[in-house]
Amino acid sequence: MTTYDIALIGFGGVNRTLAELIATRGDELSLKLGFGLRVVAITDLRLGSLVQAGGIDLAAAFRLDPGVETFAACGGSAEPDNEHVIRTCPADIICEATFTNPTDGEPAASHVRWALESGKSVCTTNKGPVALHGAELAELARRNGLGFEFEGAVMSGTPVLRFAKQLLPGLALNGFEGILNGTSNYVLGRMEEGLSFDESVREAQQRGYAEADPTADIEGYDVQLKVLILANELLGADLTLADVQRQGISALTHQVLSRAAGQGRRWKLVGSARRNPDGTVSAGVAPAALPLDHGLAGVSGANNAVSFNTDLLGPVTVSGPGAGRVETAYALLSDIIAMHGARNQVATNA
Amino acid sequence: MTTYDIALIGFGGVNRTLAELIATRGDELSLKLGFGLRVVAITDLRLGSLVQAGGIDLAAAFRLDPGVETFAACGGSAEPDNEHVIRTCPADIICEATFTNPTDGEPAASHVRWALESGKSVCTTNKGPVALHGAELAELARRNGLGFEFEGAVMSGTPVLRFAKQLLPGLALNGFEGILNGTSNYVLGRMEEGLSFDESVREAQQRGYAEADPTADIEGYDVQLKVLILANELLGADLTLADVQRQGISALTHQVLSRAAGQGRRWKLVGSARRNPDGTVSAGVAPAALPLDHGLAGVSGANNAVSFNTDLLGPVTVSGPGAGRVETAYALLSDIIAMHGARNQVATNA
Repeated sequence: MTTYDIALIGFGGVNRTLAELIATRGDELSLKLGFGLRVVAITDLRLGSLVQAGGIDLAAAFRLDPGVETFAACGGSAEPDNEHVIRTCPADIICEATFTNPTDGEPAASHVRWALESGKSVCTTNKGPVALHGAELAELARRNGLGFEFEGAVMSGTPVLRFAKQLLPGLALNGFEGILNGTSNYVLGRMEEGLSFDESVREAQQRGYAEADPTADIEGYDVQLKVLILANELLGADLTLADVQRQGISALTHQVLSRAAGQGRRWKLVGSARRNPDGTVSAGVAPAALPLDHGLAGVSGANNAVSFNTDLLGPVTVSGPGAGRVETAYALLSDIIAMHGARNQVATNA
Repeated sequence: MTTYDIALIGFGGVNRTLAELIATRGDELSLKLGFGLRVVAITDLRLGSLVQAGGIDLAAAFRLDPGVETFAACGGSAEPDNEHVIRTCPADIICEATFTNPTDGEPAASHVRWALESGKSVCTTNKGPVALHGAELAELARRNGLGFEFEGAVMSGTPVLRFAKQLLPGLALNGFEGILNGTSNYVLGRMEEGLSFDESVREAQQRGYAEADPTADIEGYDVQLKVLILANELLGADLTLADVQRQGISALTHQVLSRAAGQGRRWKLVGSARRNPDGTVSAGVAPAALPLDHGLAGVSGANNAVSFNTDLLGPVTVSGPGAGRVETAYALLSDIIAMHGARNQVATNA
């Protein structure tokens, strides 16, 4: 049976959870999937880096106390030399789960590029590399015969990208509408129930949904990146971030939401794109008062959903978790499974 | 480019629409899908049968007035000799869209069996053959190296079977809950809005959602078959129809629905199955008062949805049309596309 050697770039919640899945369920997964997984490298901002070609002792890695100990305690280095590790470690697949800024997609974009340049397939949960450098990185992967997968960049492990790419063949996809941010959706739900905007945001922070600085979620920046990814990947658009109009929910009040409720409507932060008659694609993020029988009106709390507008089926919707450690770790696993499938197909075509 | 010769068994709404898609969009579809489709046989209870190995003139077939004219006018026969046509016509693929009874799945089940026995792949939109003879027919197809696809048996062209089979790899599927009948869902919606049960059913009949005899929809027989298909196909159960508990919506009243609405709940007819700790599968159909934040509570009107309970992602839901001529014709097209994909994979593995 094939075993893929993987490198975990970033050892926070997501990649740590992936490592836990491999440690606790690896044998069961191997039986089910037909391949094994072995972690041969880990880098992390706080823990440093560790490369062991024979396979890392994950139990020892889990025991380290970040901020106090480093991989130096396991024979590695206190320095997270991402570029060196990515370029030189003996991994087949790089699992990239660090962070990204919304301006140039760094450092995640460089992690992906280094992987592809050094002959390694890569999966990432970061939106930045895909939204801002998707075409360039996909072309680099194609040229080098490598995999580049990123299901987790939109709605964590809920397979929305693969749904649209694989399960709607022969249909014309004319656009989509989505609820793509759990924090803002949670805040709107609590405001409907009577809380003020500030109270709702504070509660979302207490529950761990919202960051200390909630701007990216509340003002639609997070959704803007996801809309850009979906529009370019699924509608074949060639948009940049500036092409995606953006408006957040901070101007909405409890009064506005109650008035809508009285009229059988519910405010949601909707990310959408549509193909225009001239073939161009328009995309944006804005609050909308949806009628209760709209497919997205019932998506509540931290759930997310995307409704795809098709010619023969009308709207078809996938909903599920939009975030979460385990859910996002599964996105990486599903990416590896997809790469395994593609590799086997190439092998049989050769 | 490969061209598949197809036979249409039944020339009512669904297969007629498939023929219209082929007639009007065939070239566009060929470009997109990499194969062509040619109709070489049609049978229909009222129109009789027509076999033309060089391809049927579909425009002439569309012009026939069922009940007045027959295929005899085009050089065929006034008799719909389904067994003879299915066994001897030169089709690669049989598209079965006749009807089925819920007791033994006939006549659709025989149509499928004759196709597979005579070396032809088959796709069907009928629940009966899959629910009542699924394992036997799948085994017959496997043994003869043929395709047997039936996405349209549940939720028309909305890809719920393929979603669960293809897009949740590595997850444990522990059960599902679904709204699987548009008529009963429409009736419940109208009762919530104040109509009586009888008024709601009458309106559904006037709008073409409900049959003259609405029993199958209202009393849960239709959902029972769909739950049986999903449980056996997706949970690996080996249930028979009698194993699926069934209760319809005819005992619900406007008063019961309004009381639930006052408590933030909404009655839905829910088909569900779950894997028990001992590995067995329990399945049933029954009305349930769902809280408004339940993923299925917002599925309104004639829409359908299935929520899959997974270990790592929690519930993941697909919603879309549950019926319709075009939507069901697309199910057949998606089945043919799937068979083309499988054939190419076998060819490259050889």
